Amino acid sequence: MSAEIAKRFTAKERPAVTSYSPATQDQLLAIRVNAGIETLADSERFAAAEPDLVEAIVEGVGQFAAGEFAPLNRIGDLEGAKLENGVVRLPDGFKEAYDAYVEQGWNAIASPEAFGGQGLPFTLACNVLENLGTANMAFNLLPMLSVGAIEALEHHGSDAQKEKYLPNLVSGAWSGTMNLTEPQAGSDVGALRATATPIETGEHAGKYLIQGQKIYITWGEHELAGNIIHLVLARLPDAPEGTRGISLFIVPKYHVKEDGSLGPKNDLRCVSLEHKLGINASPTCVMSYGDNGECIGELVGAENRGLMAMFTMMNNARINVGNQGVQIGERATQQAFYYAQERVQSARAGSPDKNPVAIIEHADVRRMLLRMKALTEGARALLYFCAGQVDRGTIGDAAAKSRAEVLVPLVKAWGTDIGVEVAGIGVQIHGGMGFIEETGAAQHWRDSKIAPIYEGTNGIQAADLVTRKLGMDGGEAVTSLLAQIVSESADEPQLKALAEDCLAIAQWMQGEASLDDRLAGSVPFCTMMAVAVAGWQLVKQRAAVAAGAAPSLARTKPVTVRFFLDRIVPEAAGLKASATAGADLLYELPAEVLAG
Amino acid sequence: MSAEIAKRFTAKERPAVTSYSPATQDQLLAIRVNAGIETLADSERFAAAEPDLVEAIVEGVGQFAAGEFAPLNRIGDLEGAKLENGVVRLPDGFKEAYDAYVEQGWNAIASPEAFGGQGLPFTLACNVLENLGTANMAFNLLPMLSVGAIEALEHHGSDAQKEKYLPNLVSGAWSGTMNLTEPQAGSDVGALRATATPIETGEHAGKYLIQGQKIYITWGEHELAGNIIHLVLARLPDAPEGTRGISLFIVPKYHVKEDGSLGPKNDLRCVSLEHKLGINASPTCVMSYGDNGECIGELVGAENRGLMAMFTMMNNARINVGNQGVQIGERATQQAFYYAQERVQSARAGSPDKNPVAIIEHADVRRMLLRMKALTEGARALLYFCAGQVDRGTIGDAAAKSRAEVLVPLVKAWGTDIGVEVAGIGVQIHGGMGFIEETGAAQHWRDSKIAPIYEGTNGIQAADLVTRKLGMDGGEAVTSLLAQIVSESADEPQLKALAEDCLAIAQWMQGEASLDDRLAGSVPFCTMMAVAVAGWQLVKQRAAVAAGAAPSLARTKPVTVRFFLDRIVPEAAGLKASATAGADLLYELPAEVLAG
Repeated sequence: MSAEIAKRFTAKERPAVTSYSPATQDQLLAIRVNAGIETLADSERFAAAEPDLVEAIVEGVGQFAAGEFAPLNRIGDLEGAKLENGVVRLPDGFKEAYDAYVEQGWNAIASPEAFGGQGLPFTLACNVLENLGTANMAFNLLPMLSVGAIEALEHHGSDAQKEKYLPNLVSGAWSGTMNLTEPQAGSDVGALRATATPIETGEHAGKYLIQGQKIYITWGEHELAGNIIHLVLARLPDAPEGTRGISLFIVPKYHVKEDGSLGPKNDLRCVSLEHKLGINASPTCVMSYGDNGECIGELVGAENRGLMAMFTMMNNARINVGNQGVQIGERATQQAFYYAQERVQSARAGSPDKNPVAIIEHADVRRMLLRMKALTEGARALLYFCAGQVDRGTIGDAAAKSRAEVLVPLVKAWGTDIGVEVAGIGVQIHGGMGFIEETGAAQHWRDSKIAPIYEGTNGIQAADLVTRKLGMDGGEAVTSLLAQIVSESADEPQLKALAEDCLAIAQWMQGEASLDDRLAGSVPFCTMMAVAVAGWQLVKQRAAVAAGAAPSLARTKPVTVRFFLDRIVPEAAGLKASATAGADLLYELPAEVLAG
Repeated sequence: MSAEIAKRFTAKERPAVTSYSPATQDQLLAIRVNAGIETLADSERFAAAEPDLVEAIVEGVGQFAAGEFAPLNRIGDLEGAKLENGVVRLPDGFKEAYDAYVEQGWNAIASPEAFGGQGLPFTLACNVLENLGTANMAFNLLPMLSVGAIEALEHHGSDAQKEKYLPNLVSGAWSGTMNLTEPQAGSDVGALRATATPIETGEHAGKYLIQGQKIYITWGEHELAGNIIHLVLARLPDAPEGTRGISLFIVPKYHVKEDGSLGPKNDLRCVSLEHKLGINASPTCVMSYGDNGECIGELVGAENRGLMAMFTMMNNARINVGNQGVQIGERATQQAFYYAQERVQSARAGSPDKNPVAIIEHADVRRMLLRMKALTEGARALLYFCAGQVDRGTIGDAAAKSRAEVLVPLVKAWGTDIGVEVAGIGVQIHGGMGFIEETGAAQHWRDSKIAPIYEGTNGIQAADLVTRKLGMDGGEAVTSLLAQIVSESADEPQLKALAEDCLAIAQWMQGEASLDDRLAGSVPFCTMMAVAVAGWQLVKQRAAVAAGAAPSLARTKPVTVRFFLDRIVPEAAGLKASATAGADLLYELPAEVLAG
């Protein structure tokens, strides 16, 4: 009956919930203008990234995601992943969609050609994830985690390990996971206790017995891929305490024989699934390794250097999570626009005509919709700017590599913050219907909330910005970026003022501010800087559109950029006091007094 | 197994989820300083509100709520309300807790003494709701809706109707509902279509046959009270279109005989319950009236004046919803403080001591906790300031009555906005555990999200502020309030600057700004003004504490007020550009072009 009520609100409600239109043109614009794909294609390394191929990929994956992943978003939320007798079950359709994804080769975009990948820029891998995740955020975590495993093995695995594991990971026939967290070791990875004991003799000599329990293992168990390659952090006997005593191990779900065929199951299992706020179709597993003392793993890289190996892929992983903010922002924005055009309620204020209008005609609903659109487009511009810098770093541009590192916390923290904000506005635009689960708006909001938390909380991103990143290249990595925004923003005084504020704060933090002062202002500063960079990149988009870059965006882009500059930039400037207020007040009282 | 993992995070997790400590001292401070209860007690009308009684009520209801309502919060979320064969079932314990609530007389605090109430100030009724709702937001909606029904009948019912219905509503033996919304008539109440046909002859002559379906009826059906008095808006035959053709009817679940005993069941039923994002223990009903053409209702007040009657209670209802923001903020803050003191993770940054510390020792976690506390205390100060003005209005202070009307949209919109924000920070402080439902932090966030939507969306509140309220008393109602804040804030330059900005914006909106411009800036302006008033009221609290008003708050209050003034006030000032940007950009493109 409730479903009937929902239909009366708008007869076309259902399609808006299960489908979306890929933001192909805005993505292509960002890939060209902010990532600079055309100059990347001038390099030998990325010569394959020619305009036609780029366009084919962006259009192709958008269509694939809309057609195969999007229809499973709602059922994935409703039914979720289920653990039955040790096996994780997904709703009908997930297996077929994943098979199609592998079949069409989307998993291999940016992986090394030597192992079956296409060797294309990271920028395009971002686009694959953006489209898949806009269609189905929970499902997209499966390829997203596999990409991380591929990167770790590519950079730190032995040749034999690469040969053995990479081809199937690159194709997507197998999936990968990351096993860091234990109950006492979350943000503080160094506190982990899982162990690895060298095997001296027998069939597995040279390998390790792995023992321990890991939590929050995304897609830790499932039957969509033929094997799961778990990358597990553990301690060798007598390893030093803390982060310097952690090693990285390959722990396959099924043993892989020398000829590449699958052997028996390893001694590992999914103990339970978490009951979560969102991303219900993504099984978040408690994994137990070595219950029977027979869990075999292979060391990756050097002993006690596991965290370094993890750090290799951490930057990209954080960008991929920031990408999720763009994804959920896009999906929520499309749904809100759809609803606001369908839902008729009240006459336009002050109109002599008393006929009710679609709510998109009401000023405050327009403000909300434009805010959603401007934030999402801003986050997308920042995302692809960062991805392009990563790719430039790959082809030897040291300054771009540094700049990418500065941008990573901005993409991750602000990207995911706006994801939550935009999805929240989406619920609000739906009014009472937004609070009813069947509308689908609430799912986006619930799903969005994990992204500010995992892959380093946003507080940790901001701490990274004001400690490690602020000191890079003698401080120049941050200040040169901000100085460039200042110098290029003469025509946009509010943007220029924000960048100047950021520069002054950066210099204060690099100079007289104490570590506590920096940390106390880290989150507002991170937001300010992200908005400044996003605004600057949006202005570049606007110029490109004015020059004919994306005719279909010719009317909307100037409006969203103007909205961003006139409203969102000044709001970010309002964070200056918070960024510079310092830590004294925070520590004025002991914890127990403050808690009351 | 997941529960065991949770326990390992903190052994004392469970108590934090199900219990809370009433914020008795901060409530008493707000009731004294911001509501000015002592001067209220000087009036004949509220003479009973003596200091001892006030203290006894605040302490008593806090203890009652913590003891009886709080333990049901988690199970209410997990099991929710269920519809079985037309009967709405609540989890075990709800009936007993409601009986205890009625037994102890908490429902009757502010109701008229002539019908068994205590006739105390609205301020104290706010406090009863604050405590009940902090303990259990979903459950508290039952008394909250009954209060609305009492007010409507008190002001618009005939003597016979009051005699017949009020004693049991006041005691809580019966509950009340509000029936406005229909699928096509949400924010636009005037679009409703339910009908009322006069009965000419027979047993029910003089009454009306009610027919129609209503949605979003909070606690529309349940068995906790002996009867449910539905207040239903419907149209008489040949009534004018729109809001001028709506009449209000009493439609009891069970007919009430002349002797006050219950007769047979009326022709009405709960068709279905909504599957919602939160407040799962509050049954949100689709109600059908007159399926068999035998639903009997009594007209309340004059024909076609139903909306006026609803408006009578709308101000208080909106304050009560704003109160929910304070409630969820308080609950989430307490839980976050608890978790942050228990959860040990990482050494303090820059500390030579490498031992991990409770996360409350980390600067950004402190910043988040202080933000939660400052926002919640600010919203509470604003709430009770508004409640005190309502009570002053009741005893004939016309200026206070106007001021209360100005404050209502601020309390409702900003109060509920900060409720969502604070609950969201609470999730973030829990890290990965925040996304796991069993922790309880996620429930607060889900629950919080309804409050910005119902009882007039926050967009509608802001529209009310910049249209009706901005014009009250020739504009003076708003500007005199802001001018007073300016004149009393010489010692707090940032607060003064914010109030000056608000005053300038108000004058611009009263003058040259078009209606669209006002509406385009309404939400940011509403936030700015709410922060200015809350900051001003917090400064008054701080002064009172410095003078010895609340010794237990002597150390914390200066810190939370300072945090509010140094960080939250400047952020609100950053909304000035958004408030004054006007509507041109919003309407530059037709809806279909903007939607892309």
